Amino acid sequence: MVALDLIGIGTGNPEHVTLAAIRAMREADLILLPRKGDDKGDLADLRRQICAAHLDDLSRVVEFDLPTRDGRRDYLGAVNDWHDAIAKCWRAEIDRHLPQGGRVALLVWGDPSLYDSTLRIAGRLGLVPRVVPGVTSLSVLTAAHAIPLNDLGAPVVITTGRRLRDEGWPPGADTVAVMLDAGGAFETLNPEGLTIWWGAYLGMPHEALIAGPLASEARRILEIRAALRARHGWIMDIYLLRRGPAQG
Amino acid sequence: MVALDLIGIGTGNPEHVTLAAIRAMREADLILLPRKGDDKGDLADLRRQICAAHLDDLSRVVEFDLPTRDGRRDYLGAVNDWHDAIAKCWRAEIDRHLPQGGRVALLVWGDPSLYDSTLRIAGRLGLVPRVVPGVTSLSVLTAAHAIPLNDLGAPVVITTGRRLRDEGWPPGADTVAVMLDAGGAFETLNPEGLTIWWGAYLGMPHEALIAGPLASEARRILEIRAALRARHGWIMDIYLLRRGPAQG
Repeated sequence: MVALDLIGIGTGNPEHVTLAAIRAMREADLILLPRKGDDKGDLADLRRQICAAHLDDLSRVVEFDLPTRDGRRDYLGAVNDWHDAIAKCWRAEIDRHLPQGGRVALLVWGDPSLYDSTLRIAGRLGLVPRVVPGVTSLSVLTAAHAIPLNDLGAPVVITTGRRLRDEGWPPGADTVAVMLDAGGAFETLNPEGLTIWWGAYLGMPHEALIAGPLASEARRILEIRAALRARHGWIMDIYLLRRGPAQG
Repeated sequence: MVALDLIGIGTGNPEHVTLAAIRAMREADLILLPRKGDDKGDLADLRRQICAAHLDDLSRVVEFDLPTRDGRRDYLGAVNDWHDAIAKCWRAEIDRHLPQGGRVALLVWGDPSLYDSTLRIAGRLGLVPRVVPGVTSLSVLTAAHAIPLNDLGAPVVITTGRRLRDEGWPPGADTVAVMLDAGGAFETLNPEGLTIWWGAYLGMPHEALIAGPLASEARRILEIRAALRARHGWIMDIYLLRRGPAQG
C-alpha cells in the first residue's frame, strides 16, 4: 500500500515552512524531488535546502527529472499529456524505491490547491493524498507589500495571465490577482485608475517588488522583469491589480 | 519608536504555524492577544497555546478585551467605527506596556491579507507593519478535502456570504470561495449543477467537513452547522462552490 502526502512548503523563504510540513517530511519513507532542468535550479535547491534542514536521514530523498511540457497551442491538451507523463514518472520512482509500499511525499511550491498540478497527477495514480497546506505566493505577495488582498467586504478574482490577456478585466470585482503570466498581460488593459502590486522571486533573497499606478509602472516592471530573468535564468512573478481609489 | 508585526498563524491547527511566525513571536517585546468574549474562547485559547508552545517568557503576552461591533444596518460604517475603536485599544496597550517603544506583535487568524482587519487598524495608528504570511483558511479547506482551488487554468472568485446572498453567483467564474457567511447564503442559489465543499472549525480537533451536490447537501450542512454552533457556542465555516462537471 502506498500513501501519498502533498506538502505545501511556501514560496522561497525556507522559514515559511510550517511545523506540520516538517512533521510530514519526517514521516515520509520517500520524498520525490523533481528536477526541472537548469533554468529553475533555484527551486530544486530550495527543496534540497528544506530537506537538509529538517531531515536527519537524506537517503529517503530521491530526485527525478520532470518531463518537459509540449509547447503546442492546444494548452489544455498539452497540460493533460504532461500530467500523464509526470504520473508515469511518479509511478516508476515509487515502484523502484518503495516496492513494499510506504509513505511517499512531494514538496509543493506554495500550496497544493493554487494553480498546481500535483493533486491532478495524484488522481491519475488513483491515490487520494493527505494534503498539508502551505503559505501561498499570494499571501507572500500581499505580506511583502503589507496590503490586504480584498477591499472591505469586497470580492477578489484570482486568474491567469492568459485569461487576463484573452478576456480582459474579469467582471464583478475591483481586485484581481494574476498568476502564471508569461509576461505583461497587464499591458492589454486600459491602465486608467489601476494600481499594481508586483512581486518576483517572492520570499527569496533576490525578491523584487514594485507597486504604483499601472500607467507609470507597467513599462518599468517589464524592463526589470526582463533584466532579472536574464540575470537568474528564470523568473516567477505574480501581481495584484486594484481599480478605483485606495481604501482606508 | 514602535514597530508592528502582524503574524499569520494559520487556522486552528497549532502545527500550521510557520518557522517565520515563531521567529517573529520570539523577536516581539509585546504580543497583544484580543479576548472576544466567551463565545469565541477557542480562538483566544489557540493563540495562548501557540504562545506557550514557542515562548520561554510569557510575560510579554498581554490580553485585552476587543470592543464589540455595532450591529447596525450600515455595515461598512459599523465596521469602520469598530476598527477605530480597536485601534484605540492597541494604542492604549502599546503606550502602557512599551512606553519606551519596541516591537509589538499581533497573532492573526489565518493570513493577514484575507478578510482580516488588522492591516486597516495598523494604518489608523500610522504604522507600516511587517507582515508574516500564514496559511489561509481556504488552503486548509482545500487541503482537508484534497481538492484544488481552481480548475485547470481557470479563475476563482473569493467573496463573502453577504455578496453571494445580495448579488447571486458572481459573473465570470465557475469556482467561488465564500467566506464570512453568517449562514446559508448558498440557499439563495439554484443548486442545479453545483457542488459544495464545506468546512467548519478548520484545522481544529472538532473540524467538520461535508462535500457533495449542493442540491442534496445544503439542508444537511445547515442542520449540522446549527447543531455544532449550539454545542460549541460559536462557529466559523467557509465553503467552495463549483459549477459544471468535475474536472480530471
